[in-house]
Amino acid sequence: MSDDSDLPVVDFHPYRWGDAGRPATLPPAAREALAALGVSGPARPPVPVADVPLPAALPEPALAAIASAVGAGHVTTGHDARVAHTRGWSTTDLLRLRAGDAGDAPGAVAFPGSHEEVVAVLRACSEHSIAVVPYSGGTSVTGGLAPARSGFAGVLALDLRRLDALLALDEVSRTATLQAGVRGPRAEKLLGTRGFTLGHFPQSYEGASIGGYAAARSAGQASAGYGRFDDMVVGLVLATPRGTITLGSAPKSAAGPDLRQLVLGSEGTLGVITSVTVRVRPAPAERVYEGWRFAAFGPGADALRRLAQDSPAGSLPAVLRLSDETETSVTRLLGGGSAGAGTEGGCLAIIGYEGTAAGVAAQRSAAAGILTSAGGQPLGTGPGEAWRAGRYLGPYLRDALLDAGVLAETLETAAFWSGLPRLRSAVTEALTGSLTQQGTPPLVLCHISHVYETGASLYFTVACAQARDPVAQWRAAKARASEAILSCGATISHHHGVGTDHRAAYHEEIGPLALGALRAAKCALDPAGILNPGVLLGGDVEPGGDVE
Amino acid sequence: MSDDSDLPVVDFHPYRWGDAGRPATLPPAAREALAALGVSGPARPPVPVADVPLPAALPEPALAAIASAVGAGHVTTGHDARVAHTRGWSTTDLLRLRAGDAGDAPGAVAFPGSHEEVVAVLRACSEHSIAVVPYSGGTSVTGGLAPARSGFAGVLALDLRRLDALLALDEVSRTATLQAGVRGPRAEKLLGTRGFTLGHFPQSYEGASIGGYAAARSAGQASAGYGRFDDMVVGLVLATPRGTITLGSAPKSAAGPDLRQLVLGSEGTLGVITSVTVRVRPAPAERVYEGWRFAAFGPGADALRRLAQDSPAGSLPAVLRLSDETETSVTRLLGGGSAGAGTEGGCLAIIGYEGTAAGVAAQRSAAAGILTSAGGQPLGTGPGEAWRAGRYLGPYLRDALLDAGVLAETLETAAFWSGLPRLRSAVTEALTGSLTQQGTPPLVLCHISHVYETGASLYFTVACAQARDPVAQWRAAKARASEAILSCGATISHHHGVGTDHRAAYHEEIGPLALGALRAAKCALDPAGILNPGVLLGGDVEPGGDVE
Repeated sequence: MSDDSDLPVVDFHPYRWGDAGRPATLPPAAREALAALGVSGPARPPVPVADVPLPAALPEPALAAIASAVGAGHVTTGHDARVAHTRGWSTTDLLRLRAGDAGDAPGAVAFPGSHEEVVAVLRACSEHSIAVVPYSGGTSVTGGLAPARSGFAGVLALDLRRLDALLALDEVSRTATLQAGVRGPRAEKLLGTRGFTLGHFPQSYEGASIGGYAAARSAGQASAGYGRFDDMVVGLVLATPRGTITLGSAPKSAAGPDLRQLVLGSEGTLGVITSVTVRVRPAPAERVYEGWRFAAFGPGADALRRLAQDSPAGSLPAVLRLSDETETSVTRLLGGGSAGAGTEGGCLAIIGYEGTAAGVAAQRSAAAGILTSAGGQPLGTGPGEAWRAGRYLGPYLRDALLDAGVLAETLETAAFWSGLPRLRSAVTEALTGSLTQQGTPPLVLCHISHVYETGASLYFTVACAQARDPVAQWRAAKARASEAILSCGATISHHHGVGTDHRAAYHEEIGPLALGALRAAKCALDPAGILNPGVLLGGDVEPGGDVE
Repeated sequence: MSDDSDLPVVDFHPYRWGDAGRPATLPPAAREALAALGVSGPARPPVPVADVPLPAALPEPALAAIASAVGAGHVTTGHDARVAHTRGWSTTDLLRLRAGDAGDAPGAVAFPGSHEEVVAVLRACSEHSIAVVPYSGGTSVTGGLAPARSGFAGVLALDLRRLDALLALDEVSRTATLQAGVRGPRAEKLLGTRGFTLGHFPQSYEGASIGGYAAARSAGQASAGYGRFDDMVVGLVLATPRGTITLGSAPKSAAGPDLRQLVLGSEGTLGVITSVTVRVRPAPAERVYEGWRFAAFGPGADALRRLAQDSPAGSLPAVLRLSDETETSVTRLLGGGSAGAGTEGGCLAIIGYEGTAAGVAAQRSAAAGILTSAGGQPLGTGPGEAWRAGRYLGPYLRDALLDAGVLAETLETAAFWSGLPRLRSAVTEALTGSLTQQGTPPLVLCHISHVYETGASLYFTVACAQARDPVAQWRAAKARASEAILSCGATISHHHGVGTDHRAAYHEEIGPLALGALRAAKCALDPAGILNPGVLLGGDVEPGGDVE
């Protein structure tokens, strides 16, 4: 059994994802395909970190108050640390930093060592009018780490990496309490030595951490079998400027609204999640990932729907994915044919089973019946294992594409099953239309990666030649895609979150009354408004502009 | 297949539950057992409805404004209607009404016919300072229908029975949109003619309705297979004094907190839920309910835990219940032995399977393996069908017990598995201790009725002789039980809700900061504070007293 807990926990270079020992390179066939898109040559190399200009560091009195909360050795205004904590990992984040724009850099970085120190920092920052961006894995792709600074004396990045312990494991209840700074591979290692798994494997797995999973309502690639992160959480501890909230006295309750679900997805605006109690499962004895071919996306989507709706009592495989025709072709190109000879044309589905040997066999047999009757052709484990080997490589690949002068980015949404075909067309047309009008016709790939009884997610990957101003180029395309999503009544994000990039669309999605109720709740917990201002709940803004 | 949708939708007499054609009678053996508890004779008969004194009707200007919102024919100050909308169905509610205390009666009852009329009523009531209690099925057992009236010009009961349509059925996505006033049997009938089921069967099924399920986070007896009501909801529409909130653009989303889960459980304090979109399932072709015997409660609970944790990928039976030794004996007594000869001593578990014939057979075989290896002995379908036949009779039986001079009431809680044994002891001892000290030693029954991977609910039924002031008698015992629940770190309610009865304990459970955030959210939606004041979020009060 290959064990994802063996992946390294790495410190990221601000311009490059992950483990420097294994950067992605583009295969020759990919370079040819990119040339066909009009990609004309390598992008301008990034401005060296040392040359990136930074905004002012925090004022001395604020720094002293923060140092007294976390200890002088655990707060820094160092140049490299501030650059490394500038924004997150969206393509526009990377493009701006490559161009030397670190205007969103924090004025200091603090590393609290306990929940109590987090509360103390928040109190100090409330007093000194310092905006605080909770920084867990730092992997936001929606501008969640770029708070508004207008009206504040500065911005502090509150890096939770020292909160990296497994605080409790209840083997009878099958729950684990993990601190917010524990990253994906470390969580699996801590639990794996006790025979358990969290089963949460987002593409950002090497970098993202427990607190971020919770704050941004993460969904891992094995969500069909293990659930989304918000399904796993049974308790959490939240630090606010006014003190501590502890939630989760039972798996489920009728004692008022489920406040855990109010904190999950609050993106650091209501408080800083310092630990999370999650449901865990026995580490699987067996994992089998296989490929299936469908003649087209429609029948493939129907097959996944039938699996989600008709599997006996919801006994779904761990992983269920379906690539559209374009993504299937690209997968074949990049994989050197490992997607299997049988996938010529059509759409590739990946179905992954995890559990006991008997459980895997039973699931696999039940799924095969449904998939076959829906027109699927089994391709064996080759494509499944190829997908599994490459499942975390997307961000590495994007670095290589950006180097090559490609604009590469992703976005995702979700809807109910009956609305999915129209949603897929509308978003594809919006992206294609906008980028073609800008003179850079794109490749638009789409897949389903998360399924539910009543609907599914759609994940789009876009690649085209970079225009002169690639940030403006992408923002225009993204705005059109967001309009298409809202016009279909779908959600603006299935698992990336809101941040600042999706803020306006989010406000439209939930409406002014619900937004007002959330803002009022925030104000009760954070009267000085220091917690990630401008993110999620902030005022309407021009894209990239300040909160009004 | 026996079809619960054939049960009647009945209008309840204020003192008696359900269908007057089938009242419960106590078997002779039960009367003997009650005599052993010191029950000395029939209770004083209820004060006739016509003789119950009522507080003042709403002021004329308010009535006129409400009539202009809903039509003059849809608002009444009639005596009988006001008595019928006084409080809910807790034992103390019934005891107080039987004694002629209708001090919580509304000053009028309105019957809006549309979502827009609900919004209009809320605006009129905000202007005229009329407290509004949303009234759906009227089956609260926690004082959720007794809002505070201090500071208001009166209380309006907003009865949603005219909102009783199936607005939409999406057979592809398997979702149904039902108005709030649709009661359980009617929902099953509306869906059943289209081949679907909601699968939500609480004990209050004959009386409770969709809006109440949502507002109070209901959990039905088949929650293991079909999920709790809050698991089923994918969308809802909320009327507030400031306008409408519409939620649910996808099954799941990362676009901010899950606001559906903020409205679910808000018990009418944030707004009036006027329609709910729920996941539905194909109506089961087959239902098999069977009994299993365990030597004691501990091994039985372990067996249910193993089912919840080890069933292949969560494929649980629809119903999973385990009675303790005392409840098992009482079941045998009341059922005339239908619990099966094999249940002499020990604990009875009911396991119910629903689905396709093949699905039921597969589930049954998988469950049998786990139950047998956990020490269970199969008792066949006799006890299962006996339980199924009597599953909605509890409230009828209580009426007969109250008539006979018995104090009979229930309470429930939930916790993680590892804490369950201590919780069960603590609550049992609290109830037994308090009632014995009061000179009325009780019978305390307990069962597990809802299981999750990480924990389960505990449901207690208490019966003893009525003291001279049975309301004060129960409140003292309940206070001790609530203290025990909180001291164990468990939740104050698994599926009954908070209302006014659990308010103080709820505030202790979530803490002052979370409560402040909820109150702030309420204030944003309901600035005049008219929505069910004193319920859930109200100020601290003496039991039965006014909000300060």
